[in-house]
Amino acid sequence: MPTRYRAPELKDLPADMRARILEVQEKSGFVPNVFLALARRPAEWRAFFAYHDALMLKEDGSLTKGEREMIVTATGAANQCLYCVVAHGAILRIQEKKPLLADQVAVNWRKADITPRQRAMIEFALKVCLRSHEIAEPDFEALRPHGFSNEDIWDIAAITAFFGLSNRMASFADMLPNPEFYLMGRVPRENK
Amino acid sequence: MPTRYRAPELKDLPADMRARILEVQEKSGFVPNVFLALARRPAEWRAFFAYHDALMLKEDGSLTKGEREMIVTATGAANQCLYCVVAHGAILRIQEKKPLLADQVAVNWRKADITPRQRAMIEFALKVCLRSHEIAEPDFEALRPHGFSNEDIWDIAAITAFFGLSNRMASFADMLPNPEFYLMGRVPRENK
Amino acid sequence: MPTRYRAPELKDLPADMRARILEVQEKSGFVPNVFLALARRPAEWRAFFAYHDALMLKEDGSLTKGEREMIVTATGAANQCLYCVVAHGAILRIQEKKPLLADQVAVNWRKADITPRQRAMIEFALKVCLRSHEIAEPDFEALRPHGFSNEDIWDIAAITAFFGLSNRMASFADMLPNPEFYLMGRVPRENK
Amino acid sequence: MPTRYRAPELKDLPADMRARILEVQEKSGFVPNVFLALARRPAEWRAFFAYHDALMLKEDGSLTKGEREMIVTATGAANQCLYCVVAHGAILRIQEKKPLLADQVAVNWRKADITPRQRAMIEFALKVCLRSHEIAEPDFEALRPHGFSNEDIWDIAAITAFFGLSNRMASFADMLPNPEFYLMGRVPRENK
Amino acid sequence: MPTRYRAPELKDLPADMRARILEVQEKSGFVPNVFLALARRPAEWRAFFAYHDALMLKEDGSLTKGEREMIVTATGAANQCLYCVVAHGAILRIQEKKPLLADQVAVNWRKADITPRQRAMIEFALKVCLRSHEIAEPDFEALRPHGFSNEDIWDIAAITAFFGLSNRMASFADMLPNPEFYLMGRVPRENK
Amino acid sequence: MPTRYRAPELKDLPADMRARILEVQEKSGFVPNVFLALARRPAEWRAFFAYHDALMLKEDGSLTKGEREMIVTATGAANQCLYCVVAHGAILRIQEKKPLLADQVAVNWRKADITPRQRAMIEFALKVCLRSHEIAEPDFEALRPHGFSNEDIWDIAAITAFFGLSNRMASFADMLPNPEFYLMGRVPRENK
Repeated sequence: MPTRYRAPELKDLPADMRARILEVQEKSGFVPNVFLALARRPAEWRAFFAYHDALMLKEDGSLTKGEREMIVTATGAANQCLYCVVAHGAILRIQEKKPLLADQVAVNWRKADITPRQRAMIEFALKVCLRSHEIAEPDFEALRPHGFSNEDIWDIAAITAFFGLSNRMASFADMLPNPEFYLMGRVPRENK
Repeated sequence: MPTRYRAPELKDLPADMRARILEVQEKSGFVPNVFLALARRPAEWRAFFAYHDALMLKEDGSLTKGEREMIVTATGAANQCLYCVVAHGAILRIQEKKPLLADQVAVNWRKADITPRQRAMIEFALKVCLRSHEIAEPDFEALRPHGFSNEDIWDIAAITAFFGLSNRMASFADMLPNPEFYLMGRVPRENK
Repeated sequence: MPTRYRAPELKDLPADMRARILEVQEKSGFVPNVFLALARRPAEWRAFFAYHDALMLKEDGSLTKGEREMIVTATGAANQCLYCVVAHGAILRIQEKKPLLADQVAVNWRKADITPRQRAMIEFALKVCLRSHEIAEPDFEALRPHGFSNEDIWDIAAITAFFGLSNRMASFADMLPNPEFYLMGRVPRENK
Repeated sequence: MPTRYRAPELKDLPADMRARILEVQEKSGFVPNVFLALARRPAEWRAFFAYHDALMLKEDGSLTKGEREMIVTATGAANQCLYCVVAHGAILRIQEKKPLLADQVAVNWRKADITPRQRAMIEFALKVCLRSHEIAEPDFEALRPHGFSNEDIWDIAAITAFFGLSNRMASFADMLPNPEFYLMGRVPRENK
Repeated sequence: MPTRYRAPELKDLPADMRARILEVQEKSGFVPNVFLALARRPAEWRAFFAYHDALMLKEDGSLTKGEREMIVTATGAANQCLYCVVAHGAILRIQEKKPLLADQVAVNWRKADITPRQRAMIEFALKVCLRSHEIAEPDFEALRPHGFSNEDIWDIAAITAFFGLSNRMASFADMLPNPEFYLMGRVPRENK
Repeated sequence: MPTRYRAPELKDLPADMRARILEVQEKSGFVPNVFLALARRPAEWRAFFAYHDALMLKEDGSLTKGEREMIVTATGAANQCLYCVVAHGAILRIQEKKPLLADQVAVNWRKADITPRQRAMIEFALKVCLRSHEIAEPDFEALRPHGFSNEDIWDIAAITAFFGLSNRMASFADMLPNPEFYLMGRVPRENK
């Protein structure tokens, strides 16, 4: 597929966007492609990352950062989004310090090395992802015994819904994951 | 289903949110439920409406306002989202000045009174909605003869992706359309 | 789509058919398109309306007229039949005196303002509509607590099966709902 | 599954129904179960067989009797209806004088010993059966080169739609094929 | 479809293959097509029949020969494999001495004249056939009350998996059942 | 999930099986779990690996070893088989010397860094995997321009069919990939 939607160069972006991207680059060592691929439309970019940060960087609630990445990896796999599975699978490995986890969650989460709480969480997320119109009271009840509050459940649904948007944009616009993501979190730090 | 996620009251919201909502109320005569239902999380609310406005209020590109609402109505129906089909179906009727159009697009767009260009647009939107991982070159080529530019196609995909998020949040949180929407655009102004 | 199957004119029809159609016209104020669209084949027309009347006009059993229209609207939506959703949605609004109900049932019946009995009824009807080969004892048992007798259940199944035929004929032959149906039952009588 | 809907006895039926059933018995040597299973509701029974005869006994049009049974067998298999596949598969074998044909059509019509015309016919019938809302101009065009007129195409669609009703009633009411059907048309006459 | 993959002649095959095929011919009265169709690749042929025999000819375990053929018939029907449904349906009729059984199992096993144990067995087999990634603890638990040991369950799964391979090869290579199979087990021995 | 089917120990296996397994261990540095997991049934084990070797170790034909692993990875992902995606994805990376390739093929092969020939091959394999009953002449024709002979096409189908068996056994029996596979082929040799 040709590169239909060319990403702008960092130097040509508005100051606020450039600042945010440089901060990510500083932290990760590279600029994840999504930051530049979406930057050709600044208003959408700003809304996208504001939404992302509201869900993924928030400090309250019982969902760990690793659990949020699990949701993104499992639903991204259901949507067959290469970018999200590879990029968020990498962050999942790092957050959970489990080098094998992302592949398990992406291929068949039922076989993954996760807790019963996390299984229930992924099951709910996949229903929001694939059949949101069928969500009903029993789906909420199945989450209660695992200690999820109503706010936690909103987090699960909102992360699923937001990355469903992201999956569609990435697949549509042929956004590919940076090569760096594929290996991140797979090998102990000192080996690299 | 119980009201699990209570909407805040307008008077308790931050000034910027209140201002935006009052503006909508002024224009529509009522506050569409989505504005209050999502307001319990201000950061997500701000990102949501920033994204919404970037796509739905933008002035450039060849997609008319009515065509954007067609996309929302058709993909909302595919996701069986009551809120979006009823609310955006109403706006579609008004924008296109066709009282029968929204029901046609929602039930079976193939039978709707729309142009070949609009059929091609909806077909692409539904593929982004339901099978975004299969989008490929021929899907883009099918849009060319109808005068869609690459930027127009981005608009179709982004509107589909954004309202896919909206559909999932509305169904999950049991957000219901205001009764006003059901009748809007169905009867000539003077009759009301 | 071209008009492949031209409807005959009322004046050219056999007397029994004409009589029945005039009766409907008298009552509704217009001739619903299905009456003329199918009239090009009198033998099929007579069987169709005999079947229709046996199910929809019968006086015994616990299904109200509104409930029968609910089944037609919900299964018509599952089959994406524009004619049946619009025409029977109109009758549903009138029978139930609920102007919002038909859109709710058509888009996502789980969100509709209906009773638990009606939910169970629609769930059974949709299984007959979409996966009749899987109907088994537990499906019948789920209807018992709501007071459905075996004869009522036959009614649900037969209405579903008959309108499945109707849906297929309408979609195949490009039968479109009369414009009158779209607004029927949406506005209080005195306003019209 | 218990016999929920008991079939009436022949002697208790109204004269017109009894006459028709005796005629079938005379011709076939037994009473196919559908005649008694549906007889508990005379009005529906009369409409059902009037519809059936209008489609299956009509003399005009280019569809042979065997081709009509092919449609019933192929769509009955798609709906997993035991009664229709076994009973109409038997008639198909007899009409076409091909003892192997019904099993081929039921299991995978693509492997059946039929003509290209018949393949096109079955493909159209299965689309009406499974996705009638997607029927569009190209589906009609695919039938033209095989000599199907608009009236023939109506026959294909109507037979499919009518037996879709029949499939749903048979599966729902647990109607089972008479043992006689299983062997009919499989062995040369003189052997029996 | 042209005969793309020509079957070798018996006389040209290696001695071990020829011996096995002659043995089958001796027993059945004809050479089932699968034996020659796959023989063009001796190494695959030997592995295929070694696997087949390990599962279908083994003497231990609680699955009867008839039950094994039920699994093959039901899953073959789910995969729409003409060869396996017709050939193994024939053996099923013979093993179970029930001339009607194979058609019932192939069209809709829920209506078949089988035991609750056999229903549970087929339900498990179909899940392995169609959604093996979702097999989980409750699926095993549903088999326990019917007396299936872990080894029996392995047999069910392995037969399903092996014939899934067989179904795909037969459909792909256009392997057709011998005419003899269609009638086998349908008529009492003395009639033939 | 409990370990329902315990793998035997290497020392307890028959000599021929032990020899084969030691050979693999010698070459890979570890014993892939499939070799021990299936060893509890020697006859099935021998047939399984004979079949495997006939397809994966054969020297003739135009499919490279990497292409065969691509088929296994893509169809294993379609079947959501954790064992096969991780184990054969590892071999794919090594054979093709492309550390990113397996993840691409598993998540969405349409985005993978492969040739048009390989895309056509995977598309055919997925049709054999998911809808083998629909394979028809045009599917073969689509492979011709890429230089696939009839024997090559048989290889594609047979590899797909065989690993479909393997996927079902692995998921059913809860066979998990060795940890070693996850990292294999991702980092240059000298780094390890």
